[in-house]
Parts: sequence; structure tokens; C-alpha cells
Amino acid sequence: MKVRKHYFNGDSPENALQLDSGLPLSPIRIAYETIGSLNQEKDNAILICHAFSGDSHVAGLYEDDPDTERPGWWDFMVGPGKGIDTNHYFVICCNIPGSCMGSTGPSSINPKTGKPYGLSFPMITIGDMVKSQKLVLDHLGVKKLHSVIGGSVGGMQVLEWCVRYPELIRSAIPIATTMRHSALAIAFNEVARQAIMVDPHWNSGDYYQSQGPDLGLSVARMIGHVTYLSDEAMRRKFGRKRQDNKDFSFNFEANFQVESYLRYQGSKFAKRFDANSVLYITKAADYFDLADNSNTRESLQDLLGSHFRFLIISYTSDWLYPTYQAKELVQALKRTGQDVSFCEIEADCGHDAFLIPDKRLTKLIGGFLNGI
Amino acid sequence: MKVRKHYFNGDSPENALQLDSGLPLSPIRIAYETIGSLNQEKDNAILICHAFSGDSHVAGLYEDDPDTERPGWWDFMVGPGKGIDTNHYFVICCNIPGSCMGSTGPSSINPKTGKPYGLSFPMITIGDMVKSQKLVLDHLGVKKLHSVIGGSVGGMQVLEWCVRYPELIRSAIPIATTMRHSALAIAFNEVARQAIMVDPHWNSGDYYQSQGPDLGLSVARMIGHVTYLSDEAMRRKFGRKRQDNKDFSFNFEANFQVESYLRYQGSKFAKRFDANSVLYITKAADYFDLADNSNTRESLQDLLGSHFRFLIISYTSDWLYPTYQAKELVQALKRTGQDVSFCEIEADCGHDAFLIPDKRLTKLIGGFLNGI
Repeated sequence: MKVRKHYFNGDSPENALQLDSGLPLSPIRIAYETIGSLNQEKDNAILICHAFSGDSHVAGLYEDDPDTERPGWWDFMVGPGKGIDTNHYFVICCNIPGSCMGSTGPSSINPKTGKPYGLSFPMITIGDMVKSQKLVLDHLGVKKLHSVIGGSVGGMQVLEWCVRYPELIRSAIPIATTMRHSALAIAFNEVARQAIMVDPHWNSGDYYQSQGPDLGLSVARMIGHVTYLSDEAMRRKFGRKRQDNKDFSFNFEANFQVESYLRYQGSKFAKRFDANSVLYITKAADYFDLADNSNTRESLQDLLGSHFRFLIISYTSDWLYPTYQAKELVQALKRTGQDVSFCEIEADCGHDAFLIPDKRLTKLIGGFLNGI
Repeated sequence: MKVRKHYFNGDSPENALQLDSGLPLSPIRIAYETIGSLNQEKDNAILICHAFSGDSHVAGLYEDDPDTERPGWWDFMVGPGKGIDTNHYFVICCNIPGSCMGSTGPSSINPKTGKPYGLSFPMITIGDMVKSQKLVLDHLGVKKLHSVIGGSVGGMQVLEWCVRYPELIRSAIPIATTMRHSALAIAFNEVARQAIMVDPHWNSGDYYQSQGPDLGLSVARMIGHVTYLSDEAMRRKFGRKRQDNKDFSFNFEANFQVESYLRYQGSKFAKRFDANSVLYITKAADYFDLADNSNTRESLQDLLGSHFRFLIISYTSDWLYPTYQAKELVQALKRTGQDVSFCEIEADCGHDAFLIPDKRLTKLIGGFLNGI
């Protein structure tokens, strides 16, 4: 299955994205991917929201990419005959603003200065991500979303969709996510941000013309990576296995496989992702609280009067957004009169479980979508 | 109760500490504190082993310290009439080598160069810590330990004492600890080490004549601090409370109380602790595996033939060394014929619970000690 990277360009002032912070973002570019065809009624669309470091490339292979071996990040789930069956549904996935994978973010050129935004890029919320996706859906002529689906930070966008545009949605599948970022999750994000910001090459976010904060970014990713795994998965995968079965070297080289794995993950991430984007996206996640009315923002109460179907999925070993938080969400949605199904999947691989091919997840989502 | 900081000085070559890595450490200085009196039989001593960033100042107030408001780190537990009753027992607490709180460590002067060791300091193991404590006990004339007690990395020392010197011990109380460092625990330590080592001021450990890696050390402590708390404790203590009840600032200042708390803890730690000591002590913890015979070191099997009483304590919300790991330890010790009591204490405050005044812990330890 061949796909292409498209861009939506909102470059007129009327097209500006009015951000939750009160500032406008203009021009705005959103990278997106579509798979399948929009039907005549324009109501068979499914929006997939990617997680923190994901992108619009949700499935298939890029037709013009020399590296054609790299399928999209949810390729096992999305395609003809798969859980999200593109023979029936028109799948859309947009890169979130604030990211660095094609949409406008801190590494984009600030038209006022001709230089990359850096920290002059405005703060982004989960709501802003959703509003940017709405621009793309309008552009594509989508009238109704059969479903909105996403995991982790993508799951937050799913929930935000429900309160921002309930009239546009039939169903929603938030996976491995939470209705409000916990103190523990904020804490890990804050440590990751500090790891970047104490790197002298970060230079207050102004590093695009020189060496960037790769070392700090690498440490930030190591922290994140640990929270995406689980105690059980790490015991199974690494335990106390040593590099090359060697005895202790009695120095600070990586003796244990888990050390060398994390170092590798950190430096690999630093090569492909922008440090400022980590700051902006983690902050958006930290701000997220579906039940917070303090800023007269949309919230759970806006769901009263709407009625749609939810499939909420959590994982037994996810300690970043544990099952008790999914259950809080179930209860909160039921109180607004929604039709909620909930499933906790037994898996030892932690928060990232939804990214790992799993027939149970595919069947669950496929069955739910077809039953609507 | 007034106490003093004492020093044991092993400055002759015969006094050198033969380290597990094969290298000698000489001269060696060990800071220690004693409370109470050694009896005529010299068998009423209790050795308390401190945790990662602790020191020899276990209880009371320093008689010559201008800052006399700072009681020892386990003051609620140790003293006349307390859980560890210094009317009956002669309490000893030694600062571990590799630390920076009075005992020889990477910030000490290397006699060969006249400059601080830095990374030329040899690697230390939990076994080396125990051997250094044995030097102090010999110096004090202690013939038998009524008990060895400690939490976290201190608990590892307790277990190591049992396999190194079983003939010297009557009982042992390992608290909130593990018989082998898990992949998850190694992972967090490795991220903390990397946070220090990527700070350019770390300078390969050679920073004692200039500015040190305070920012990297601060991030390392933030990571550690999160692992010492728990999801529940952080929800209760911080939740999503904002600094000064302010609205979101939409910038990267600390909006949430948990952010500002962690930043404070990080920078406070950087003022009092040596970054290289963090590297050495975390590595010692990572090496720790009581059941590992691969280096022909002492291990669990050396307990066969000995018989003493264990009180093993874990906490429900400790996710660094969870209760399942304490139960593994219980099983392993029972297989060697030991008399093991086990108690899981219900507490929501995470790994650090043993450092927080708690009458249940005091009674448990007091009762156990008096029953031997």
C-alpha cells in the first residue's frame, strides 16, 4: 500500500489558528496522510491521532520515499482488511502543530523574522491540535467522523475532539490515555524538559544554526523511554543481562544491556526529533485536563446532550496512564450519558503496548467500528 | 541527644581495603557515628546502613555543629526509648566509601597525585561498603552485631553483611530493598548518570577546581526523587495544583507545584552532594546481585549452615523495589534455612516511606530486636 505525505497550508490571516493561549498561529501548515476514499455522504472518515513523537505517516509505504522499507507507525492496524479497514473507511492522520514532522512547529520559519521560531513559537494545547485537525477535515470536505482514534497523547486529542466538536463524531476510541495528566506524568515530563534546557547547546531554544542540545535531548528520551516500558517487560527483555556476556568492566561504560539499549534509543531519537518540539508537546500534555472548567474552556460538561459510543482501552502494565485512570474516564463519561465500553488488555509491555502488533487490539477495534 | 562525627583512618598499607574490583583503596577514611555504649560482652552493637545519599549522622544533634537544628536522618527511630533503643544497644552508622559525606570517595585527595581522585577513584561495590564497615567495627572492638539494619541501598548492605560475615550477626532487617537490582532500577540509575555525564562541567569527572556539573546533577536528582515517591503520594501532595493558584503562564516556567518542587529538590541536592559520588554509588547498587556466583563472590549459598533471624519489610507503594522483590528475597532466604519474618506496610508515600516517621515501623523493629 503506497501513501503520500500531503500538506494543508493555511496561509491567509482568516485561516490563522486561534490558539487557546489567545495568540494566533499564522501561517500554519499541517502534514497529513489519507488512506481509502471518502464516500458520497462524506461520513466514513476516521481520524487517527498520533502520540507524542509520532507523525502523519500512519500506515503503508511512502511512494516517493527512497527508504521504502519504513511502513507507517500503525501499519498493523490500518489498511485494506485490517482492524481499521481502509476498504470501508477514509483514514486521515495529521501531524500535530508543535511537532517537527511536517507541521508548523518551533523549528519552522517565523515569517516575522525569517528565522526559526525557537521559543518565540506560541504554546500549543491539545485543543489547538484538535482545531488544526478540524482545518484539514474541512479542507477535505469531511462531514462526519465515523470515529476518532488514538493512543497516549493521541488519546487526549480523541477526548478533546469529543468536547470540542461533539456534533461531528459518531464514536471515539481513546487508548492508553488519561482525562487529566497526573502529577507523576507531569513530573517525568518536567525532568525531560529540564534535561534539554540545562544543555548549554539548547541556548534558550535558539540552536537551529548551530549544534543542538543532542545530549540533553538524548537523556530526555531515555527518561521517556523508561516510562513507556514496564518493570515486567524490562525484566523479560533485559533482566541483568550484560553486554556481550562480559564480566563487570568496573568503569562507567554500559555493562548491562539495558544501559546500552537506552543510550542507543536516546541518541537515535536525538537524530530525528527536535528538542524544542519535545518541550512544546510535553507541555501540551501537562496542561491537559478534560474536566477543568477554570479557563472557560470546553470540558466534559459539553458532552451533556450529545450521545456517542466510546471504546476505552487500557493496558495492565501501563504505569504512565494506569487502568485506574481509564476507569475514572469511564465513570466521568457515563455520568454525561455516553455509551461506554471499556477493555483492559493484559500485556506486560507497558504504555507503548498499543504500538505493538496485537490481534486482540485489532479485533477489538475492528469489531467496535463495524458495530456502530 | 548530642552526637559526634568520628573518623576511622586506615592509613597503613596493611589497612588498605582490598576492593572487589581487585584494586586496593589506601589510605581509607570512614566517617562514623556511635550512640549508646558497647557492653562488656561487646555483643550489643547494632549497625545501621544508610541509603544512597545518606550519611553517618543517623540520629541526635551534632554537639559541635552550629546548625544544631538538623537531627540525624533516622532520628525518629534511634535514641533512648525509641525503636532502636540506645539505652540497650550500641548503635553504629558509617558513611559508605564512594560517598562525599566524610568517607573516602571520588572527591577525596588521591595521595599519588595530590589532587581529588575524580574518575581515578576505583569502583566500589556493596561488598566493599560492608568491608569498610567491618574495619570500623574491629576498631571499636565489636564482637557481635545484635542486628544489621538499613533501607534501600542500606538494605543491600544488610544482605551483603549476612553473606560476608554470617558469624558476626544475630539478626538482620533489610527494608525497602531487593536482592538484585532490576532492569528498571538500573535504567533509572543509568539515566541519572547520563544526565551528569552529558553536562560539560562534569569534564570527565575532573571539576573540583572549577564549576561542577550542578545542572546535570540537579536533573539526576529530579529523576531519583520521582522514583522515591509514588503515583498516589504525588496525587495527594501535588495533584495538578498550580504555583500560587495562577492560571497557566503559557511558557516554560514552573506552572505546576510538582514542577517547582522537583526543581527545588534538584538544586538543593546539587549544593550538598558530589556528582561523581552519584555515579559511583548508583553503579554499586546496579552491580548488586545477592544470588550471583559468577564472580566467585560470596552469595546466598554462603548462608547455608548459618542460622539467623530476618525481618524483611516492604511498602505497598514502593515501585523501585516492589513487594514482589521482597517476597523473592523471603523465599530465597527460607531456602537457606533462615528464620524469616516478613511485613508489607501499607503506605502511599513510595520507596522513601522508611525515612518518614511511622509508629508501625518503630514498633515492628523495636519488637523484633527485643525478641531476639
